[in-house]
Amino acid sequence: MSEFKTVRGMRDFLPEEAKTMRYIENTTRKVAELYGFKEIITPVVESYELLAAKSGEEVRSRMFAFKDLGDRQIALRPEFTASVARLVATTLRNEPRPFRLFSVGSVYRYDEPQKGRYREFWQSNYELMGSNRAEADAEILMLTNSLMEKAGLKSYAFKVGHVGVLRSMFKQEKLNEKAQNQAMQLMDKKLYDDAFNVIREAGASTQCLDGLNQLVKLRGTEIVDVVAKMKECVKDYEQSINAVENLSEILNLVSQCGCKINIIVDAGFARGLEYYTGMIFEVFVPDLDIALGGGGRYDRLIELFGGESTPAVGVAHGIDRIMLALQEQKVKSAKGPERRVVVIPINEKLRVEALKFACMLREAGVSTEVEVMGRKMAKALEDADKRGMDFALIVGEKELKEGAVVIKDLKEREQNTVQIEKILEAIKIQ
Amino acid sequence: MSEFKTVRGMRDFLPEEAKTMRYIENTTRKVAELYGFKEIITPVVESYELLAAKSGEEVRSRMFAFKDLGDRQIALRPEFTASVARLVATTLRNEPRPFRLFSVGSVYRYDEPQKGRYREFWQSNYELMGSNRAEADAEILMLTNSLMEKAGLKSYAFKVGHVGVLRSMFKQEKLNEKAQNQAMQLMDKKLYDDAFNVIREAGASTQCLDGLNQLVKLRGTEIVDVVAKMKECVKDYEQSINAVENLSEILNLVSQCGCKINIIVDAGFARGLEYYTGMIFEVFVPDLDIALGGGGRYDRLIELFGGESTPAVGVAHGIDRIMLALQEQKVKSAKGPERRVVVIPINEKLRVEALKFACMLREAGVSTEVEVMGRKMAKALEDADKRGMDFALIVGEKELKEGAVVIKDLKEREQNTVQIEKILEAIKIQ
Repeated sequence: MSEFKTVRGMRDFLPEEAKTMRYIENTTRKVAELYGFKEIITPVVESYELLAAKSGEEVRSRMFAFKDLGDRQIALRPEFTASVARLVATTLRNEPRPFRLFSVGSVYRYDEPQKGRYREFWQSNYELMGSNRAEADAEILMLTNSLMEKAGLKSYAFKVGHVGVLRSMFKQEKLNEKAQNQAMQLMDKKLYDDAFNVIREAGASTQCLDGLNQLVKLRGTEIVDVVAKMKECVKDYEQSINAVENLSEILNLVSQCGCKINIIVDAGFARGLEYYTGMIFEVFVPDLDIALGGGGRYDRLIELFGGESTPAVGVAHGIDRIMLALQEQKVKSAKGPERRVVVIPINEKLRVEALKFACMLREAGVSTEVEVMGRKMAKALEDADKRGMDFALIVGEKELKEGAVVIKDLKEREQNTVQIEKILEAIKIQ
Repeated sequence: MSEFKTVRGMRDFLPEEAKTMRYIENTTRKVAELYGFKEIITPVVESYELLAAKSGEEVRSRMFAFKDLGDRQIALRPEFTASVARLVATTLRNEPRPFRLFSVGSVYRYDEPQKGRYREFWQSNYELMGSNRAEADAEILMLTNSLMEKAGLKSYAFKVGHVGVLRSMFKQEKLNEKAQNQAMQLMDKKLYDDAFNVIREAGASTQCLDGLNQLVKLRGTEIVDVVAKMKECVKDYEQSINAVENLSEILNLVSQCGCKINIIVDAGFARGLEYYTGMIFEVFVPDLDIALGGGGRYDRLIELFGGESTPAVGVAHGIDRIMLALQEQKVKSAKGPERRVVVIPINEKLRVEALKFACMLREAGVSTEVEVMGRKMAKALEDADKRGMDFALIVGEKELKEGAVVIKDLKEREQNTVQIEKILEAIKIQ
């Protein structure tokens, strides 16, 4: 047996899985179209400098980075946002706002492989750029809801928070940027005590620590209730109150417009990436402890890439994780079985005729194989059966002289001589 | 302006081009289904050892090769065949033959960028493995013809040859493998004199050189005629005669089954890759001097990867090159324009209602944007016009009280008050 294998963290998708992956990919494209997002295709290989510019240390240290033959520092994209930001800051800079941009493809991170976590994985990515308003945030949440629904997930929920609540407290407390980022990352990992230590050492007041301590325990599905309690926790921090109101406005828009979204507000929710500035969220299913998607608002990113100030909100979904969730929930891939036909000539001389019938069936849109192994009829039929084909079209001399072929229904186990002009009818195409 | 840009040889596809790329990709998938090929998805990143195992020196030296953080020698795939062969030699080794496997995605080669040649490019790849018969070769030619036709190309032709004709002469002349490969590569570049020198030095007879000299001048669209002349050139080389007969058999199958394929037989045609053993071909359009696709038979490759002996024939098509050819031939992308609607509330208070109408339209499958910039009506309409939207659905208080909205047809420049239940009708969905 061959000693070649996939590189650690990489994997193959065999036909059944590949079909589900493409089905989900097509669904992400359909949702993009429904929400008016235009697809762009950016390279897998980008300059290291671009990809490192805004990703936190954690992502940066796990990039597939190398030099090309021209000694350029390059890397495989760990996500799409940097590439989209590059485009918005350059090629698209003079186009009218807002942008609704969609991307889908593979991304790369050198993580420790585990269930649902590979070094090559697939994302769909949506960015709504140019609007700082709550409607834009609401659209991104609703779009994600549409995708999960259309993909066929049976049960999923959104965890929603707002980076501005914590960041504004930190800012009013005049904590340095580094301590802020460190605290956010620790809170992302739910290491609250460590986070509190960091901000205590950075000089936070007791009042701040008390507020935080209450905040991180606040979560629930009663939006109005949780929001009111959040306000209470941050009552001495004006910008934090504004952030809570922004979150409340977004969630009201979503729930009032009749979208049935399962939302858990989580006041202490933080996401690892440093560039978020507003609402943040993740979507997950009860059966898996990894998020199927996540995103949020990042109003200062485009400037960071040298573009003009452009508020933005976006989301990335894990296509292979959605597939995993569908498998866990035992959801059948939505696509029904197509009719598959194999054409078998009874002898060598009829090979051309067999190819002709294959051409005809394919013209009519029928998935058709032709016997290319030169096997005897019994053997070829046995093989067709084994692979779950629906019909065998058998080309024989006697029938051909009478303008007919034999069609064997491999599922119903019956066979009939059928006039050539009735073939499509016989395999129930129309 | 931002200083970030794409890495040399890489590029972005903006929405119009991305749409064409995805249209062609979907066409390659549709053709796979029609011909019974199952899609597999293999990683972009493979072990260097695997990718280098069978590609010639030329491809090998231009790979994007590097070490990952675990010190593994890896590279970005320069084509799909090695990955497919790996699967066939491992995971799929016990599955019944033949295999019909399809892949599509990006591949990477460090070539000098020029028109139609980038360092990241997209291929569709079809491999029919397990059959050594002419029907299999014919299927691959016909499949390629179907793809070009369905993609919408107006004029294209196949150049077809057979590696076995030349290889068998070389073998009977007992030329060493290195000289053979060198000569084939020179002939691929049409450097015939250099090729002749190489084989002369390797000890070829005058008779061989004379035959070759005639062979390389032989090309034409009259298949029967060219084939007869080829036989004459190689009359003293038994295996070469067999190869010509195999070529003739394949081409007869294709032409007799009613497929209208434009074929030029080229007796001196060679392809750079060393692993071809039989029929080889390329498809091209008159307007471009690069091939849109190419392939052939390679009966010994799977063994090379440690699998059991498996004759095979395959083809790879350049998706971005097909797009380029469509642009050169001024073929419009087949997809008609969808109806695109923008929903605009006349004031802040109606934002929720606007989102509700957007939900409703999307439920009905309509591509819908919602005004997220909080702009005044005139400004929002001007923007919708500029971006070629078809309809604006305007949500006003007065109309809403009467269970209606205003629909403005942006193309016909007319507007009407429409009852809510008649909205879909008004934008001509049904």
